[in-house]
Amino acid sequence: MNDVATLINGLAAAAGTDALITDPVRTAPMLRDHRALYRGHALAVVAPPDTAAVSRVLAFCNERRIGVVPQGGNTGYCGGATPDASSSQVLMSLARLDRVRAVDATNYTMIAEAGCILANLQRAAADADRYLPLSLGSEGSCMLGGNLSTNAGGLNVIHYGMAREMVLGLEVVLADGRVMNTLTGLRKDNTGYDIKSLFLGAEGTLGVITAACVKLWPALRSRATAFAAVRDPEAAVALLGQLRDASGDCVSSFELIPRIGVELTTKHIPGVVDPLAAPSGWYVLCELSSSRGDAPLDAILEKTLSEANESGWVTDAAVATSERERDAFWRLRESIPEAQRKDGASLKHDISVPVSQVPGFIERAGHWVEQHVPQGVLVAYGHLGDGNLHFNVNQRAGTQAFQLQAVESKLKRAVHDLVQQFHGSFSAEHGIGQLKVFELERYANPVELDLMRRVKHAFDPNGIMNPGKVLTRG
Amino acid sequence: MNDVATLINGLAAAAGTDALITDPVRTAPMLRDHRALYRGHALAVVAPPDTAAVSRVLAFCNERRIGVVPQGGNTGYCGGATPDASSSQVLMSLARLDRVRAVDATNYTMIAEAGCILANLQRAAADADRYLPLSLGSEGSCMLGGNLSTNAGGLNVIHYGMAREMVLGLEVVLADGRVMNTLTGLRKDNTGYDIKSLFLGAEGTLGVITAACVKLWPALRSRATAFAAVRDPEAAVALLGQLRDASGDCVSSFELIPRIGVELTTKHIPGVVDPLAAPSGWYVLCELSSSRGDAPLDAILEKTLSEANESGWVTDAAVATSERERDAFWRLRESIPEAQRKDGASLKHDISVPVSQVPGFIERAGHWVEQHVPQGVLVAYGHLGDGNLHFNVNQRAGTQAFQLQAVESKLKRAVHDLVQQFHGSFSAEHGIGQLKVFELERYANPVELDLMRRVKHAFDPNGIMNPGKVLTRG
Repeated sequence: MNDVATLINGLAAAAGTDALITDPVRTAPMLRDHRALYRGHALAVVAPPDTAAVSRVLAFCNERRIGVVPQGGNTGYCGGATPDASSSQVLMSLARLDRVRAVDATNYTMIAEAGCILANLQRAAADADRYLPLSLGSEGSCMLGGNLSTNAGGLNVIHYGMAREMVLGLEVVLADGRVMNTLTGLRKDNTGYDIKSLFLGAEGTLGVITAACVKLWPALRSRATAFAAVRDPEAAVALLGQLRDASGDCVSSFELIPRIGVELTTKHIPGVVDPLAAPSGWYVLCELSSSRGDAPLDAILEKTLSEANESGWVTDAAVATSERERDAFWRLRESIPEAQRKDGASLKHDISVPVSQVPGFIERAGHWVEQHVPQGVLVAYGHLGDGNLHFNVNQRAGTQAFQLQAVESKLKRAVHDLVQQFHGSFSAEHGIGQLKVFELERYANPVELDLMRRVKHAFDPNGIMNPGKVLTRG
Repeated sequence: MNDVATLINGLAAAAGTDALITDPVRTAPMLRDHRALYRGHALAVVAPPDTAAVSRVLAFCNERRIGVVPQGGNTGYCGGATPDASSSQVLMSLARLDRVRAVDATNYTMIAEAGCILANLQRAAADADRYLPLSLGSEGSCMLGGNLSTNAGGLNVIHYGMAREMVLGLEVVLADGRVMNTLTGLRKDNTGYDIKSLFLGAEGTLGVITAACVKLWPALRSRATAFAAVRDPEAAVALLGQLRDASGDCVSSFELIPRIGVELTTKHIPGVVDPLAAPSGWYVLCELSSSRGDAPLDAILEKTLSEANESGWVTDAAVATSERERDAFWRLRESIPEAQRKDGASLKHDISVPVSQVPGFIERAGHWVEQHVPQGVLVAYGHLGDGNLHFNVNQRAGTQAFQLQAVESKLKRAVHDLVQQFHGSFSAEHGIGQLKVFELERYANPVELDLMRRVKHAFDPNGIMNPGKVLTRG
């Protein structure tokens, strides 16, 4: 047995000056997850100041078989950054690794550390007249290391891809403390296996990302945004294809919103108003953007919507004529989660299917919910351009929260089974963490799951990296 | 010892009807590489008809520790698809797996088998009014499986990325014959480690790709192409940034060509003419493209070139006014390798550095060649938009080939050492194969190389998958 005080002293020495955090006012929010689903206890909480200190902490823990839970902005949805209840794991915050090491505008790249807050990196890119497209609700507090470790998605995936696709190189500390520095700014490099991609989305179970070289794009100078009532999800999919064609593939966001999304936000969120006069079953919020200063995006958007109106796909639409109007459209979309919370309990599923299958999926899954969950009402919205739906069921007015919660398991099983039938994913953008470990066991391709375990064992033979996340222990 | 005839009978039975190829007229071209650098001997040559047969062959070979060398169109540059000389390995052609399994235009995806010829897939996409951007010199004979196994680059990387970035899902047969089918058409799927990316670029050393789900894009309807004389490589880099901004990031190709590229092609290739009146040290061939039918790409290109002319970056330029003119520009660019061959011996290096570093690299490396290789003349051209240069040295007129070949090792070491100083890659798009195994040993980050070996051992414990390619044996 290791004596706890000795261990903590050793850890503190490894982690460096001021790295051990003992004040419970500071540690308490770090030991629970953002949605308050999980609460953990740690042997110690450390915030090393640099990569060398991260390396020392991991080497120390690896020798002693102590589990290490890395944490960035702690904004994840699946408990991936919360330690277990055993008081035997070390929580390691990357927040102090917060430097932008280099911006190379000519190469369209930036090298930044794991603890950089995403919004700060967006600004650093803008200062160099470049654009960092990674953008999500929590960008004011989430950190790059967490974004990359969870392969974050967000609002611009349709055009720019997931976080993984934005990374050219990484600095990673392995379980044994070795540092793999491949912070390359190369677009093309075919020298062996794509080791980097394994860490992107591994949620800290294979090593700790301490810095990354990410791609930048030309700064955006034109933008057009519309809120359109569509006949149904199928019409929305057709409009998306039309718009990609007509705009020269400039669609940067394409969000599907059901009528109830408008109703919940106008009811619960001050200042949100229905952008259109008559109600519609379904809407899309779509945005075109371009680095070209004089790109006629408004005209393209209006023409496409008007043609779609003639085709019967679009029944009404508003194109934003000011930033204020654009912000209002986005506020409606982005406050759906908050409005859902204010309206009562909800059961959430972060799923994806091929874009062509979204209408069929909504119909089948919606029908199931209607038949089997009379105490719930479907709130299915999300990033249609990526086939990603937040397929949520909210407590129906006049029912109690517990009545909805009683069907949580049954509903999850039905939704995820149906997702599998549609060749979809039960976790499109939020990852696995501890919340979905058993879903992965259930739905993963068994051969692929076996390869994941082999990779885990090969990279972290002592099993110290974020134990019990993504994969079951052992 | 296994009796050879018994082994071959067993293999033939595993590989299925007509799968064993014994006619030396057919096997001879399969047993040497496209550049005739390598010639191998095989225990047997098989061409299984489907994934199940591939699985049976691998299971058979894995049990008996027989090496298997997968082969597609056999157009690689590094000997990755050629067996060794021992007559103990099985050469497995994937050419019979040549079906397009599905095109989903609405999802912008296509599922195709490894043996599909790339140009056929481009056509299948076009038939569905979609665009498959993967395009390279050998597209009329190279095959999808090889493209993906070597993470092919080509002419459109600047806009669409490498082959790896175009793949959503794979069907792979592992060394032990198990089939991992993750042929998903999902844009977003965060369920565990990115296992798929490991096979993309692994050159058949981790398993055999039998099919893939690849992304498609909207069909292109506008295009503008220019051949411009630039002041120097630095001006070319500046022009690239300007053009990305001004076009709304529609630059799909941006090729750097030195004066000697024009001289060699106009001299050796019938029909190639210098597009401009006065000679210039450097040129770029650039192309904008868009799915928008009425995108004013010619006007944007002309305006940008004219502004660059005022800045002194561009000294003269021709914008193609017809398909014939465009084809002539491209014919010049694409026939540089052939013209080099016709002009004499050459020593080639497929390197990349950050785009911002290309001018400095050319200066430093060019200076070295001038000083140390008087019998050679530098022919450095390539995909400037990706920082990828084909840094070749050709035999100088009046010298003998052997005089150049005598400095091959010295030159390679100097170029690759300098590439490393510039944080670049000694193999940008052609991979490792058997040609660059020791370069990888020398230049790879040692921690990353160790992880590659661990992955290899975890996926192929008996070492039967394309032994000696990418990594050294054992």
